[in-house]
Amino acid sequence: MVAIPEEVLRWLDAPEFAVIATILPSGRPHQAVVWVTRDGNDVLVSTVKGRRKHLNVEADPRCSVIVYPKDSPYSYVEVRGTAEVEDEGARELIDRLCQEYTGNDRYTADDGTDNVRIILRIHPEKVVTLIR
Amino acid sequence: MVAIPEEVLRWLDAPEFAVIATILPSGRPHQAVVWVTRDGNDVLVSTVKGRRKHLNVEADPRCSVIVYPKDSPYSYVEVRGTAEVEDEGARELIDRLCQEYTGNDRYTADDGTDNVRIILRIHPEKVVTLIR
Repeated sequence: MVAIPEEVLRWLDAPEFAVIATILPSGRPHQAVVWVTRDGNDVLVSTVKGRRKHLNVEADPRCSVIVYPKDSPYSYVEVRGTAEVEDEGARELIDRLCQEYTGNDRYTADDGTDNVRIILRIHPEKVVTLIR
Repeated sequence: MVAIPEEVLRWLDAPEFAVIATILPSGRPHQAVVWVTRDGNDVLVSTVKGRRKHLNVEADPRCSVIVYPKDSPYSYVEVRGTAEVEDEGARELIDRLCQEYTGNDRYTADDGTDNVRIILRIHPEKVVTLIR
């Protein structure tokens, strides 16, 4: 376990967008823009059960999450780690993220249905930061 | 070869930041924030010879580039493809990108030296877009 430096935790606590990279079955990298937060030193990403990044981390949990602040895009934190898939608290997490990013209390999927949400809990193993 | 949809080309032509994912020798994904542009249907990223993403694509050219516009972050284009490394025109490209992103005519590295630049020319093989 590697600690995320204190001075970049604020980017994970703020509603900054992140990009998560996972590995497709072919070995190719796959990327997606996501909301992100943290629980202590773990990075948390919410996704839908069965979606590509969920399937990818089930097959290979190694992933990377990068955040560059909207107002300071030459600064960034890249967290490389291993994702654990969690069900518990997934609905609460997506609603909390939704509140933080959009101001709406409850997240509703584009198609109006409530998908089954899961949490990707990423344990940092390598952290690269640049603050400019 | 897969065509990048017309309606997202403007994000590649504008000075929007991108994230490139490549594969580390260990098989883990690696991400970096980059300036990006295009040459026709190829995505162009500038980097320094010998830098991690250069070494990664020399070993495995499969990569992903994702752009979400600063003012519309729920829209994105992800281009998955194969990177070809080019030397020719690399200095001109970094200066052009520098001009577009910062307004300065000539790019100078942080340490004041002129590193040897290369171009990652990415041939799209799969393109995923969402416009909201």
